[in-house]
Amino acid sequence: MRTFNDTLLRAARGEQTEHTPVWYMRQAGRSQPEYREIKEKYSLEEITMQPELCAYVTRLPVEQYDVDAAILYKDIVTPLPGIGVDVKIKSGIGPVISNPIRSAADVEKLGEFNAKEHTPFVLDTIKMLTEEQLNVPLIGFGGAPFTLASYMIEGGPSRNYAKTKSFMVSQPQAWFKLMDKLADMIIADITAQVEAGAKAVQIFDSWVGALHVEDYRIFIKPTMTRIFGELRQLNVPIIQFGVGASHLVKEWHDLPVDVVGLDWRLPIREAAARGVTKAVQGNLDPTLLLADWPVIEARAKDIIDQGIAHTGGHIFNLGHGVFPEVDPAVLKRLTTFIHEYSREAKANLK
Amino acid sequence: MRTFNDTLLRAARGEQTEHTPVWYMRQAGRSQPEYREIKEKYSLEEITMQPELCAYVTRLPVEQYDVDAAILYKDIVTPLPGIGVDVKIKSGIGPVISNPIRSAADVEKLGEFNAKEHTPFVLDTIKMLTEEQLNVPLIGFGGAPFTLASYMIEGGPSRNYAKTKSFMVSQPQAWFKLMDKLADMIIADITAQVEAGAKAVQIFDSWVGALHVEDYRIFIKPTMTRIFGELRQLNVPIIQFGVGASHLVKEWHDLPVDVVGLDWRLPIREAAARGVTKAVQGNLDPTLLLADWPVIEARAKDIIDQGIAHTGGHIFNLGHGVFPEVDPAVLKRLTTFIHEYSREAKANLK
Repeated sequence: MRTFNDTLLRAARGEQTEHTPVWYMRQAGRSQPEYREIKEKYSLEEITMQPELCAYVTRLPVEQYDVDAAILYKDIVTPLPGIGVDVKIKSGIGPVISNPIRSAADVEKLGEFNAKEHTPFVLDTIKMLTEEQLNVPLIGFGGAPFTLASYMIEGGPSRNYAKTKSFMVSQPQAWFKLMDKLADMIIADITAQVEAGAKAVQIFDSWVGALHVEDYRIFIKPTMTRIFGELRQLNVPIIQFGVGASHLVKEWHDLPVDVVGLDWRLPIREAAARGVTKAVQGNLDPTLLLADWPVIEARAKDIIDQGIAHTGGHIFNLGHGVFPEVDPAVLKRLTTFIHEYSREAKANLK
Repeated sequence: MRTFNDTLLRAARGEQTEHTPVWYMRQAGRSQPEYREIKEKYSLEEITMQPELCAYVTRLPVEQYDVDAAILYKDIVTPLPGIGVDVKIKSGIGPVISNPIRSAADVEKLGEFNAKEHTPFVLDTIKMLTEEQLNVPLIGFGGAPFTLASYMIEGGPSRNYAKTKSFMVSQPQAWFKLMDKLADMIIADITAQVEAGAKAVQIFDSWVGALHVEDYRIFIKPTMTRIFGELRQLNVPIIQFGVGASHLVKEWHDLPVDVVGLDWRLPIREAAARGVTKAVQGNLDPTLLLADWPVIEARAKDIIDQGIAHTGGHIFNLGHGVFPEVDPAVLKRLTTFIHEYSREAKANLK
């Protein structure tokens, strides 16, 4: 049996590590030929409902790239049908919802989430992975209320979240009720994932960067404080992540989380200058994986150096998910480079 | 003859004004029934090529809303055919380009822009507007090189600008050649617009917020410094604008511009805290125009107050363009409110 690699967990807690741990958002997925083959036969929903297959997809990049964590293969909308949301993930589009939320009455209709009843397959996949040969932490995850609400109110992906914001500011009472119900769902979902064996948690508030700082403080932060406050009791590191949210990183730092996830826009040292002293995760621009290797290496080096200088700790990642066009060999080479370069740089510091 | 209202020009230069000047991006357009009627008969390109019609469309919101500036009705891609780019604006999609840039050779093929030859209709529209009854400044405008290049390289609108960024970092020499050629075009275009009568200029770098701060410094800023350095000699106020670029506002402040345009994410006081002491423009979230009036009024009030406290000067605007769904009566009411509330607040300060 191989030794368990807990580098990511230690880095998330701000402890010293021998190398900079790394994983990639969407590491299990579109860029892998093995995955694309499976995807020709099954939809995302169908894969998540078959624990053996889902565990295989989740494990694949760990074995291929030697990354320091696995991330459960599923979607942030996976728990939504459990509370009564009719959601389908359409290829090339994203989640599409046939019964969007338009009123306080629609919010009232949402049910209560029960992981064992609604997503037993997720728990089975986690158990299978953790009881088996996985020698790195499995990251469980969920979508944050704003991001989930944006799909539920718009009825699908959106460019500007006009309906969501309009609902938020014009029907604040219904909005907070919706936030509360989604918070309950997320807490139940994540708790079950951790009880099944997930060793860290990432909360995706992917689209919350569309909000004004003060709207974030008024309409989002109280709910996030409650969610993270409760998840803290699970004693696993918590990572907060979103895209296009450079103006919110200090707000996130102030939440009871362990790691602030950065997209690719803000250098780690500038996040630190804005008060983010906790561990950070990120932040290579995922589009750069389509560039030539010298460009990738130079950027990775700079990010590793900034991460080592960041006393709170650093987990290497991309600023967003891996694009389908990325060559898996590049991810393998990058992972090796991050491990070797950071190991040497950290050794030289001593 | 009515007195010329130069409030916007004075605010842009950081001078005291009796009220906070206001205009709205896309004030002439999709939200106006009169415009939609015209649009049923003519495309955007066809409207811009008919100076009488284009001047009418440009003037319409000035008369309806009593805003403090007109903005020329056209698109940022309007000059591109002049340099050999085959672009069509497709309704509901945006600019689509049939001959995208993929190599250094494609960049070489781009021609030189001549406003009198390539866009005489734009100059005729401006002359018509300024010689006529327009009693507010006409704002001329153009797209910045990164934003134009993103359409030219991707072949149309993009979610992630992967091809553009990959071109930028992997073929830097061709990239800088492209930036240079687009800079030449913009300088020629804007110079002609100002000579024809435009009294202020806005440069839209709408999508540059997709870049990492350091990429902005390396691949974009030198070109922007040259463009603004040359445009400065025209002696009209220059406004820089882009969306999702909260991480770049200090970079913009450091450019030779008069006004830093803010989208809706960053409060004016937080932009000031990041070193933006010049005049600012913005920044009501355009989606809030779909909310109830008390919400709009409260937000507008807060922005006006922050603008008055901002010693560099303030021009009220939205953080992005008016949505098609917005009721023109709301824009009229908001304009009146901005004028009246700011006049009173400024008078009370004395």
